[in-house]
Amino acid sequence: MSSTAGTTIKCKAAVCWGAGEPLKIEEVEVAPPQAHEVRIKILYTGICHTDEYTRSGKDPEGLFPVILGHEGGGVVESVGEGVTSVAVGDHVVPLYTAECRECKFCKSGKTNLCGKVRTTQGQGLMPDSTSRFKINGQSIHHFMGTSTFSQYTVVADVSVVAVNKSAPLEKVCLLGCGITTAWGAVVKQQGIKGSNVAVFGCGAIGLGVISTASVVGASRIIAVDTNPGKEAWAKKMGATEFVNPAKLPEGKRIQDYLVEITDGGLDFTFDATGNVHVMRAALEACHKGWGVSTVIGVAAAGQEISTRPFQLVTGRTWRGTAFGGVKGRTELPGLVEEYLQGKLKIDEYVTHHRKFAEINEGFHDMHAGDCIRCVVDMS
Amino acid sequence: MSSTAGTTIKCKAAVCWGAGEPLKIEEVEVAPPQAHEVRIKILYTGICHTDEYTRSGKDPEGLFPVILGHEGGGVVESVGEGVTSVAVGDHVVPLYTAECRECKFCKSGKTNLCGKVRTTQGQGLMPDSTSRFKINGQSIHHFMGTSTFSQYTVVADVSVVAVNKSAPLEKVCLLGCGITTAWGAVVKQQGIKGSNVAVFGCGAIGLGVISTASVVGASRIIAVDTNPGKEAWAKKMGATEFVNPAKLPEGKRIQDYLVEITDGGLDFTFDATGNVHVMRAALEACHKGWGVSTVIGVAAAGQEISTRPFQLVTGRTWRGTAFGGVKGRTELPGLVEEYLQGKLKIDEYVTHHRKFAEINEGFHDMHAGDCIRCVVDMS
Repeated sequence: MSSTAGTTIKCKAAVCWGAGEPLKIEEVEVAPPQAHEVRIKILYTGICHTDEYTRSGKDPEGLFPVILGHEGGGVVESVGEGVTSVAVGDHVVPLYTAECRECKFCKSGKTNLCGKVRTTQGQGLMPDSTSRFKINGQSIHHFMGTSTFSQYTVVADVSVVAVNKSAPLEKVCLLGCGITTAWGAVVKQQGIKGSNVAVFGCGAIGLGVISTASVVGASRIIAVDTNPGKEAWAKKMGATEFVNPAKLPEGKRIQDYLVEITDGGLDFTFDATGNVHVMRAALEACHKGWGVSTVIGVAAAGQEISTRPFQLVTGRTWRGTAFGGVKGRTELPGLVEEYLQGKLKIDEYVTHHRKFAEINEGFHDMHAGDCIRCVVDMS
Repeated sequence: MSSTAGTTIKCKAAVCWGAGEPLKIEEVEVAPPQAHEVRIKILYTGICHTDEYTRSGKDPEGLFPVILGHEGGGVVESVGEGVTSVAVGDHVVPLYTAECRECKFCKSGKTNLCGKVRTTQGQGLMPDSTSRFKINGQSIHHFMGTSTFSQYTVVADVSVVAVNKSAPLEKVCLLGCGITTAWGAVVKQQGIKGSNVAVFGCGAIGLGVISTASVVGASRIIAVDTNPGKEAWAKKMGATEFVNPAKLPEGKRIQDYLVEITDGGLDFTFDATGNVHVMRAALEACHKGWGVSTVIGVAAAGQEISTRPFQLVTGRTWRGTAFGGVKGRTELPGLVEEYLQGKLKIDEYVTHHRKFAEINEGFHDMHAGDCIRCVVDMS
């Protein structure tokens, strides 16, 4: 037992008090974990576009005040009653996609979308419908069941996984979202080996898709991004070609261009932009008869994808993936081992580092074209 | 050799002279088959909505004058040079989806969409870019590579298959489109057995999907149609339930209702309406995490399907199928055997019969709610 077990911990957290406001470092009270909950000392956290999406106010389901963050790495400080999957001192990664192994979804063997804590997580609360965070008596919302922008956070025991202690948490924290999402989107798709692939968007997820497709053995990997600075990045990760849609001849659509240069289209495409127009292009760039397009990016609220149904009737498939289809508790430890064995890239994604006090600058970093991931030191 | 081989045959054909016009029975000259072509005496033909789509003028790619029809059954009258796959006297079904076994598509093992004659077929011509049909010297367009609304037609040798002579052509002609499409859409989809399925639209294709899903062993088959007269039909074919979207409470969307009554949604849905709004409902009625929706119906030109990408990201898959994914030359003979063995329903679909002279009435029949398929006797 740690000396703080069972007590309320006062620590610093980056709080977003309202839509569109910058984060503010506040002293927050973090209540002890209840039954089947885990309190974690967060040491590092990445910043992801989904955090910014909610912070900005574009997320219609955003709740405030809130402690954002969902790409964290930390150490278990204490556990509530009945917790058996992790222990005090374990190095852990919080999981915004829980894995209870008991619900209809977990038991189906067909999806990683666990239903156990989904409702309360969406309400910014723990499974008992209350919050563990308070500031001057005011309850602060949790975010994605993780809230890693706090020096201490509390998560459900189905929403956390212990990983090899020899892995640096300032790196494997990124497995909490982007890199794992990209890895799963490729690895769980049959047939990538020997196929041609296009990846739309060369942020952390797009680069992760490129890297994984390269490891899996795709024969041709076309990276697509309007930022020319991403060409070097994409090729470093394994892209065989780079196409800038902004540099095509006037009126030439990216999907038509890709169909031309691939003799009919791609076997597999991935959208890692969140832009619904790009999602359409990604589908339509697929080869007639068998092309499969996977939506990974999260679109802004209310936006819709569309296409002519003829695109589907002539053999293209439109699918999507959340957290790469990865079951976090089952699969993350193995991913950490792959990283330790040099088979999975993580270090390459970390372009920026920030102290906790500079977390708002970390958000600015993300908007700059040269940032893949900014990791925040929570100490 | 038949006595007519090598000569131009004069016979009757139903010609559509222009968009929106009724068919007119005309005397047409049918030239002998060229190399790798087959001339067929058509004995029976079904009438399908795709014929009506082009006749009506809604098909922007429709060409006139034209001899429509693509659900035919007949006997080979003569063959051109190099034809080895069928012989004079064979009972055959023309195939609007060719199977050359040589092109990139055929060799892929992933699709039935043969590319061999696609371009000229779309131009209403034979592979040498000319027509075999003439009236008073004027060339008449072919349709879908089949033109079964003529007592004699010419097709490419990759666009026809011989079937067991003991099968009645007035029944197995329907394998040329609707019934095969429905059968393939279900049989080629893994996982139907033991699953719950919803079928939108209870025309010939929808009923075929229901029937095949029942044979394959779906545990629950919900038929959806706004025509209450279809309930008995759907249940006769194997539906376990019938839902009329027009009878739901005010404001209740069919997809929401289906998700409710299936504890989360369907494992598989099929659109057999061609209505893009129904296609969306079919996707959104799918179960989160694993539901697969298949578009079978052909939408009107210019119409688009749309949904929130969240539907895909949370694990639903949107796909489509043409001719049920069936390779006609390879698979139709087996389907005919299944019919002869009583395993595949065809007779049940034939609700109306028409003499050739009444073919326009056959089109009217199709619009009546009580018609599944009208078969025309070409004699």
